[in-house]
Amino acid sequence: MPGPIATPHPPSPGRRAAGTLVGDVSESAVLSRILPMFQQAAASLLGPGDDAAVVASPDGRTVISMDTLVEDHDFRLLRPNGLRTTGYDVGWKSAAQNLSDINAMGAAATSLVVSLTLPPQTPLDWVEDCARGFVAAIRGLGAAGCSVVGGDLGAGAQLVITAAVTGSLEGREPVLRSRARAGDVVAVTGPLGRAAAGLAILEDGRPVSDFGALGEELIAAQLRPCPPLAAGPAAADAGASAMLDISDGLLRDAGRIATASGVSLDLDPDLLQEHAHPLAPTAELLRVDPLAWVLGGGEDHGLLATFPQDVQLPPGFTAVGSVLPGRPQVTLASQATALRGWDHFAH
Amino acid sequence: MPGPIATPHPPSPGRRAAGTLVGDVSESAVLSRILPMFQQAAASLLGPGDDAAVVASPDGRTVISMDTLVEDHDFRLLRPNGLRTTGYDVGWKSAAQNLSDINAMGAAATSLVVSLTLPPQTPLDWVEDCARGFVAAIRGLGAAGCSVVGGDLGAGAQLVITAAVTGSLEGREPVLRSRARAGDVVAVTGPLGRAAAGLAILEDGRPVSDFGALGEELIAAQLRPCPPLAAGPAAADAGASAMLDISDGLLRDAGRIATASGVSLDLDPDLLQEHAHPLAPTAELLRVDPLAWVLGGGEDHGLLATFPQDVQLPPGFTAVGSVLPGRPQVTLASQATALRGWDHFAH
Repeated sequence: MPGPIATPHPPSPGRRAAGTLVGDVSESAVLSRILPMFQQAAASLLGPGDDAAVVASPDGRTVISMDTLVEDHDFRLLRPNGLRTTGYDVGWKSAAQNLSDINAMGAAATSLVVSLTLPPQTPLDWVEDCARGFVAAIRGLGAAGCSVVGGDLGAGAQLVITAAVTGSLEGREPVLRSRARAGDVVAVTGPLGRAAAGLAILEDGRPVSDFGALGEELIAAQLRPCPPLAAGPAAADAGASAMLDISDGLLRDAGRIATASGVSLDLDPDLLQEHAHPLAPTAELLRVDPLAWVLGGGEDHGLLATFPQDVQLPPGFTAVGSVLPGRPQVTLASQATALRGWDHFAH
Repeated sequence: MPGPIATPHPPSPGRRAAGTLVGDVSESAVLSRILPMFQQAAASLLGPGDDAAVVASPDGRTVISMDTLVEDHDFRLLRPNGLRTTGYDVGWKSAAQNLSDINAMGAAATSLVVSLTLPPQTPLDWVEDCARGFVAAIRGLGAAGCSVVGGDLGAGAQLVITAAVTGSLEGREPVLRSRARAGDVVAVTGPLGRAAAGLAILEDGRPVSDFGALGEELIAAQLRPCPPLAAGPAAADAGASAMLDISDGLLRDAGRIATASGVSLDLDPDLLQEHAHPLAPTAELLRVDPLAWVLGGGEDHGLLATFPQDVQLPPGFTAVGSVLPGRPQVTLASQATALRGWDHFAH
């Protein structure tokens, strides 16, 4: 189970006045504040400071992925309830969503390169917090061989944080989306729907305290997701036939496996209710069905995988359905569903 | 010599009305327009379509770098003289500046991942042109083993194009900035200052035709730079002691080698005048000293390298100075200079 993990307490959201701004200093002054944080891990053969970094790829292959966070699209600096998103949170989330993509291939992360596009009025402290968030996520999530090995720094109208991540398959075959077979078991690492519930609280106008201790936990799941980085390689070793990380919602991501593999994925609503149940108190306050968070909410960055029936599910995975023959679709107890997940342009 | 190379003619800058916009269609509709262009090259073991791609790293090491282009900071869609920057140009430039970083380590590029942050009002045709520019640059610059293997697509207020690039050292040692030694020869691949001259024309209000055929060439050097991708590995093989690509201006980038190596780089103004001379007609029209473009202009993405004195310079390199002992600085005929290159925040 990914669950909550022990992490250093992030800087308080109630910030002091901005202090030095990025626009007040030179590029090298910004770099001199953040580069010392990036201690190089085992896989880094040459770290920041040259035109490029060099990373070890012991089995002769490199897994690579990239994800971007854009202010006012993927995060808001100021929420309707008055909460501010810290640089730490944004750095953590950028690292986590990138590490999750490597996890979903059955690989272990070896490096991150990070591009920060910063409005000149960005406090230098915010940038430092952001770097601290990257480092804390790498360490807190257990990506032991990984470090920030380089990147790019520039100015723009809006905060944009892009990271690319490399990983090592350590001799494994990558687990694709396209190899699910009829008869396979569909399984997830949980819990599901927590990040979506946290987002709903953040977008609600009421003070966070109205949502109690659970509310705080759910907000943390949204702001600082914890992909289960041991589970991806474990699933690959166990013989997972297909896998991806749930970033755009269970139904939408299940649909991707269905489409890529040419199969139907049938999910069991009773098993999914077990993920919805703990969210009920929050859902009641917000007058929504918690199952909608479980089915449609992304950003928990748990894993969705299919396993041949005779495989014992690795630790952290629980069955939620089965793979059926037939045209690519996702059904709930054999019933079609119209619920969709996240699309960057359609919303 | 990098020089002008034969490239497919880019789409005309005078564009028809916008047609379909990114905001009118889904993320997958955008992807379906651009993904088919990215034919996978030799080093791609698994291309776009999964959580991550897999790239070959034959010698067990991966070189990695990242560069970002931001609208109104690194390029303008509309110039004072009425010229529009096409998606093709931006795609080309993003690919070129990333491939150049791999070149500067003495490596050969193996893959690009690309993140496009697109305002909803971006024409879908512009995005397609941008993808075409990436493909054309990879092919036109001779990065034969390289292809676009993945990336990310999202919405934002401003166009932001980030690419990360991987490369293979093919058994070579990477050429760092920090190994220049007193007595070494300082050499560059030319020509220098052409991209800066092109920028000066673009930022001038006069019609491009006032600057004649040379003006067109210089604009092309700014919009679609041609890093000499054979020269990086050749310099490494020849025994270059230090190397980087000239992206922020000769003086500034020479200063980086001086600082990293703890040496002084003395440049010969007579040798640099040979780069300035061909720019004289344009410089006269703009009433500037063309040597300022040679010394301070970046974005040509030629190479600056140091070689032990007994090494024969590889094809494309010409000597422009020598490495001296003493405190880190860059001098012109042993005179200190105050000219500086590009800083993202200081300008």
